Amino acid sequence: MLTSQAMTSIQTAADRFAVGVVKAWTAAMASLDKQFASFSDDELQQEIAPGKNRVFYLLGHLTAVHDRMLPLLRLGARLYPELDQPFLTDADRTSPDQISAPALRKAWADVSAKLNGAIAALPSDEWLTRHDAVSEEDFGKEPARNRLSVLQARMTHAGFHSGQLALVVKKK
Amino acid sequence: MLTSQAMTSIQTAADRFAVGVVKAWTAAMASLDKQFASFSDDELQQEIAPGKNRVFYLLGHLTAVHDRMLPLLRLGARLYPELDQPFLTDADRTSPDQISAPALRKAWADVSAKLNGAIAALPSDEWLTRHDAVSEEDFGKEPARNRLSVLQARMTHAGFHSGQLALVVKKK
Repeated sequence: MLTSQAMTSIQTAADRFAVGVVKAWTAAMASLDKQFASFSDDELQQEIAPGKNRVFYLLGHLTAVHDRMLPLLRLGARLYPELDQPFLTDADRTSPDQISAPALRKAWADVSAKLNGAIAALPSDEWLTRHDAVSEEDFGKEPARNRLSVLQARMTHAGFHSGQLALVVKKK
Repeated sequence: MLTSQAMTSIQTAADRFAVGVVKAWTAAMASLDKQFASFSDDELQQEIAPGKNRVFYLLGHLTAVHDRMLPLLRLGARLYPELDQPFLTDADRTSPDQISAPALRKAWADVSAKLNGAIAALPSDEWLTRHDAVSEEDFGKEPARNRLSVLQARMTHAGFHSGQLALVVKKK
């Protein structure tokens, strides 16, 4: 059995890059989890700023975007395609909510568990292979269109909405 | 002389990881540049939401944070230490602004040019070496405290404030 020091020493540079980007993703997701958990179901109805999206919409939006990462990163089938219409295609409050707050929280938790588990388990070199929205042929010409690029873009996207959630002043 | 195809083929996996994270950083910075450029000097005085930070403060805040990345990533001396007090230590509007909008924009441009140039030029494996806030000894035990971790955390941070800037409704 390898000691932890030996384990470290056999890591390749690619392994250490993969550890770094996965660690950063995990931290960004923990931060979002904490933010969403800080809102009661009633508070999810608040807007991030006057006239802007509700927290509820951002929870659905991030769930839908992350659910779509499963096939995009070739990590498996998505879980909640029905969230695309209300939380990606439509703007907030286009139609009455079809999903309850507890059900939406469950969708977020399910998607997070499946996605983040698969991300943590992906072998290092696999991050450098194509994502699902680029053909094998195009990827041959543009090798930067890899899974890593998706993870990085979605991390900035998560930060984007996290910054908005941080603005919410809870009503007493 | 190597053709561009041969250049690609001699890239190591670590090189391709480095290309990916630097590309993502560059995109996040281009996005922030575009947002800040979209505000007139007068509009920089607007708040991102009622009672929250002004755009002007976020411009100074991101300039100070990124300026500090120069020594933190061991990429050289910082350029504007005088921005720490008003934009990091103090909250917005603690005291009257000591810097004009054009001067603050210049600081942002100077810091961006130096930092982003050095980031793009860093050899791949250097991302896996320690950042300046960890000792050699501690780094030996915790190799994840590397320059890559700083870049990733600051990318999420940039996204965080980018999401806030996107909320500003410009007054006519």
